[in-house]
Amino acid sequence: MSRKISILGAGLVGSLLAVILRKRGYEVTIYERRPDLRTAKIGVGRSINLATSARGWKALELAGLKQEFESIAIPMYGRYLHQMDGSHITQAYSKNNEAIYSVSRGELNKRLMSIAENEGATIHFEHRCSKVDLQKNELTFHLPDGTEQKVVADLLLGADGAFSALRDSYAHSDRVNTTQNYLEYGYKELNIPPDANGNMRMERNYLHIWPRGKFMLIALPNMDGSFTCTLFLPFEGDVSFANLHTEDQVKAFFGHYFKDAMEMMPTLMEDFFANPTSSLVTTTVFPWHFGDRNALIGDAAHAIVPFYGQGMNAGFEDCSVLSRLMDKHGNDWTTILNEYEIMRKPNGDAVGKLALLNFVEMRDKVADSKFLERKKIEKDLGLKFPDKFISIYEMVSFSHIPYDTTIRCIEAQDSLLQNIMNEGDYFTNIHNPEFEKKLNNWVAGYHETVQLFDFGNEA
Amino acid sequence: MSRKISILGAGLVGSLLAVILRKRGYEVTIYERRPDLRTAKIGVGRSINLATSARGWKALELAGLKQEFESIAIPMYGRYLHQMDGSHITQAYSKNNEAIYSVSRGELNKRLMSIAENEGATIHFEHRCSKVDLQKNELTFHLPDGTEQKVVADLLLGADGAFSALRDSYAHSDRVNTTQNYLEYGYKELNIPPDANGNMRMERNYLHIWPRGKFMLIALPNMDGSFTCTLFLPFEGDVSFANLHTEDQVKAFFGHYFKDAMEMMPTLMEDFFANPTSSLVTTTVFPWHFGDRNALIGDAAHAIVPFYGQGMNAGFEDCSVLSRLMDKHGNDWTTILNEYEIMRKPNGDAVGKLALLNFVEMRDKVADSKFLERKKIEKDLGLKFPDKFISIYEMVSFSHIPYDTTIRCIEAQDSLLQNIMNEGDYFTNIHNPEFEKKLNNWVAGYHETVQLFDFGNEA
Repeated sequence: MSRKISILGAGLVGSLLAVILRKRGYEVTIYERRPDLRTAKIGVGRSINLATSARGWKALELAGLKQEFESIAIPMYGRYLHQMDGSHITQAYSKNNEAIYSVSRGELNKRLMSIAENEGATIHFEHRCSKVDLQKNELTFHLPDGTEQKVVADLLLGADGAFSALRDSYAHSDRVNTTQNYLEYGYKELNIPPDANGNMRMERNYLHIWPRGKFMLIALPNMDGSFTCTLFLPFEGDVSFANLHTEDQVKAFFGHYFKDAMEMMPTLMEDFFANPTSSLVTTTVFPWHFGDRNALIGDAAHAIVPFYGQGMNAGFEDCSVLSRLMDKHGNDWTTILNEYEIMRKPNGDAVGKLALLNFVEMRDKVADSKFLERKKIEKDLGLKFPDKFISIYEMVSFSHIPYDTTIRCIEAQDSLLQNIMNEGDYFTNIHNPEFEKKLNNWVAGYHETVQLFDFGNEA
Repeated sequence: MSRKISILGAGLVGSLLAVILRKRGYEVTIYERRPDLRTAKIGVGRSINLATSARGWKALELAGLKQEFESIAIPMYGRYLHQMDGSHITQAYSKNNEAIYSVSRGELNKRLMSIAENEGATIHFEHRCSKVDLQKNELTFHLPDGTEQKVVADLLLGADGAFSALRDSYAHSDRVNTTQNYLEYGYKELNIPPDANGNMRMERNYLHIWPRGKFMLIALPNMDGSFTCTLFLPFEGDVSFANLHTEDQVKAFFGHYFKDAMEMMPTLMEDFFANPTSSLVTTTVFPWHFGDRNALIGDAAHAIVPFYGQGMNAGFEDCSVLSRLMDKHGNDWTTILNEYEIMRKPNGDAVGKLALLNFVEMRDKVADSKFLERKKIEKDLGLKFPDKFISIYEMVSFSHIPYDTTIRCIEAQDSLLQNIMNEGDYFTNIHNPEFEKKLNNWVAGYHETVQLFDFGNEA
């Protein structure tokens, strides 16, 4: 007999998971802390637009939703780097013109909730879970009228985000390992509206970055012609949120570092002082499940910083893996949750590390000519040796190779590229047969090394 | 005007802290989760005897309590290693015949509580704190009659242990970093009573160890002639608690690995099945304080595993440092708590790492002849070069050198000893003038390296 499944959280992962489970015939009830996004006024200024890439699309496809969401997604084929002097450089994400897709978090979430309900899932809003008794699988909810409600779940999946109540109950159990690490950076959401004619003020199909070494501004395109901008800046120090208290300070800061952006931000001052300065956390936890009773998924299992655009993608990939394991093991949730944890825990840790590494790349390295050179060489290697070389970025964003494998390849790629770049200009050398011979050997050596890793397909 | 101080936890650190603060004229109230140890029947089988060393004595001395506690402490001058074949080896802790002291946790705690009360501190027992509002400094207590009580503290110090309610409230605040890591080992307390004539069944002035590679048994002497034994064993695996379910299994296990010990344990079976199998956790947190309102101390700030016998010593050293900072800054708690955090956080992290490293030493390395040889050489180096060389063990247990400095010295000592041992038998070589010259150079080089570190006195 099929089990009844309770999901904590009607966010992106919880809602998609509900759709996938409903399609398999499970009875699904979601409990969501917040009011209904579709009718309530939603909190703004904390969204960070989503960048959907291969892993996210795969899970949406599994749920039959790919086409629906392609219509609200804007492809970004590369980075558009705004330099201090007002000039710009573009940098393609892929050798094959692949894109990551800008999607509004709110819009995607609303639609996923409606689809889940249409498929027959029930969503209880304004049910704040304060604790879970892991033995009894009993949830305690606080309702808006001040009353408490207790519910015993059959199978419980915690998709309730970085500050998950289920994760917190795990953390208070014996022999559960946890970490939570905040960056010393905050972020603040800002806005570039369309111009007077309703047109976009910048190139549409890019992820815009103003890399400034220790900090950065980014902007992602929206369907309405606006861009959602996010400023990432240290909380404290010389150039920091702590030193941006007055309009004059904010004006001087933007005028110096982000002059071109400021000119496109008519509501900069209002946005800057109205929107919160939010923090950025990475969390890990182990185990991810207790028996066949409950398990963590998405940010609840692995909250990460947003710099690789992989938060939602990693959570959706958790859903794909669960779906595959249900194919394999039917209704045997003991085995499903065991294998899920074994498969996903190393990848949850790995994507957290990748996201932290990409922050340094985005705010600092992209402004360096050596780095830009390397990116061009990587693209050429990918075209010359399509079976042997895929750049780390492409593995993360355009493949289903386990994140953990990706992170293991970093060192081997660094050493390969170092060898190549030590020889001088690659695009000159490549016409020299002697260099070509060396290159073939290096790439073969690289390939031999990384072949030892598991390139299995996660989705 | 002097502030009123509330302390969470009447354990060892909370009680000692109360004495130190009362002697400075602060009004002190302690809130303790458990009933009064002195009148209630206390939970047994989870104590792990204490080994008091220099840092602990220093703090007790500051509170005027050293003499009182010397009378209930048994010096242990070294390790007494029980080998598989029934033979034994002893290993001195120090070149100067210094000792660590076995003390009953319960006895020490009871006396410290009474002294705190005699000094004028108030202890409220059976006050379980469920949360602290860090902004208001408001504590919520659950009382035995089921009621809730709220108390606003002036200055609050959380000495409430590894599962501190104050630490938990920190962990739920924005931008607080935490880790909690359990060993895959559990421990179980056992007992070797005195013999029929009331005499000790083993040598009194040693810490007894049965090192067995992946696991071990230890025994510490008690005032009543008994020894408190602790078995440290993996939770799972071939040789593990998971495979000790029946009396036959326990008998076979002890008969094989701890034959001599088993013969001295008439209540082995009762103890084994009655006493809990407990887990071992290391925790870290940052920050350690919020403004001048509240701070963490002892295990609440840095819970560690017991293998260096430094848990209480580190917590008492926190008290010494606070005391020194009160000397320096009077009633300026903003400065006191700031400096306390800066001074102690690296040392809290370091003692946690040292304790984990010492587990490998105790259960495995001590059984290795190379390691025993190294210990003898270390002792000789300490005698030959008293101003230049102190072994890591001596730094931790018999000095007030910051733990963080100690851990920085490990690599330099490893490399020094490696150089010496690569030359062959030290005690033969030492008579060779050429070797002596080399040795002088190596030790001078070692000393030059470690002089860069901060050897400041923590207490």
